[in-house]
Amino acid sequence: MMNIKNIAILFLIATVSLSCKEQNKSAQTPQTDTQQQTVFAKGKLITNDNFTGTVWLENLIQADSINQNSVGSVTFEPGARSKWHTHPAGQILLAIDGVGYYQELGQPKKILRKGDSIKCPPDIPHWHGASSDTKFIQVAITGREKGETTWLEAVTDKEYSSPATSIF
Amino acid sequence: MMNIKNIAILFLIATVSLSCKEQNKSAQTPQTDTQQQTVFAKGKLITNDNFTGTVWLENLIQADSINQNSVGSVTFEPGARSKWHTHPAGQILLAIDGVGYYQELGQPKKILRKGDSIKCPPDIPHWHGASSDTKFIQVAITGREKGETTWLEAVTDKEYSSPATSIF
Repeated sequence: MMNIKNIAILFLIATVSLSCKEQNKSAQTPQTDTQQQTVFAKGKLITNDNFTGTVWLENLIQADSINQNSVGSVTFEPGARSKWHTHPAGQILLAIDGVGYYQELGQPKKILRKGDSIKCPPDIPHWHGASSDTKFIQVAITGREKGETTWLEAVTDKEYSSPATSIF
Repeated sequence: MMNIKNIAILFLIATVSLSCKEQNKSAQTPQTDTQQQTVFAKGKLITNDNFTGTVWLENLIQADSINQNSVGSVTFEPGARSKWHTHPAGQILLAIDGVGYYQELGQPKKILRKGDSIKCPPDIPHWHGASSDTKFIQVAITGREKGETTWLEAVTDKEYSSPATSIF
């Protein structure tokens, strides 16, 4: 049989214990926020047909007559990718978060992970996008001094799911 | 007077409470690790005299004859900064983490925060670095097609501590 005093003690212990759980919860919440917080804004949904799946673009730097590089942060949801395309002055990709793919025509698909960087040569057909189960955020640095991107065919599911190799 | 039972109860409550603090501590540790996890490697300590304070450089992309942009991730410890300098083809800075400063000669010092981007015009003397109490990580995209950086005077403490304005 429990008396009033024992019940009060159990209640006190339960209160301390629950308070502890709440504190842990609040301590963990910012961690989750930090993990989800990316460097750049997600930007606007891309609505043209140069991409398959859901892709977002935040323009960071516009090319001008003095500095002809444009810079943008692109967020690919899992499975999303560009069409095959070429850049007349080439491109540099910096992997900011997640896991993505990059493939040049005739080469194996490469895996890009947070911190990786890669140079796309001018006029070489290539595509890039997210892996099938993890989104991918990249910064694209594109020279505009020789003209705009030429868009080619969509990346087929067979091409997308071809074997991958790590870039390092 | 406290009896043995009361002492035991107090001990139990203290144990639950201390255990709670330990749990909070361990819950917070990964958060700190996540916050410290940057996108790019810190790279090598810069040992030349073009910088004041402790600065690290990770080269991401080397310029070549086809793509003449070099890209590097620079980590400035609090208070660290470059000397005044100019780029013959200009530069683009992307703020990856922390809080930094950017100043063009004759203009107010600007504050750069994670996600900000800024274009430095060619041949304009400027400097960049961390704020006094927070480190700063930037990606620098530098055109090399017109030659290398010209290094000028060190940024004095008076210049460094001049009033700042936000870029947005």
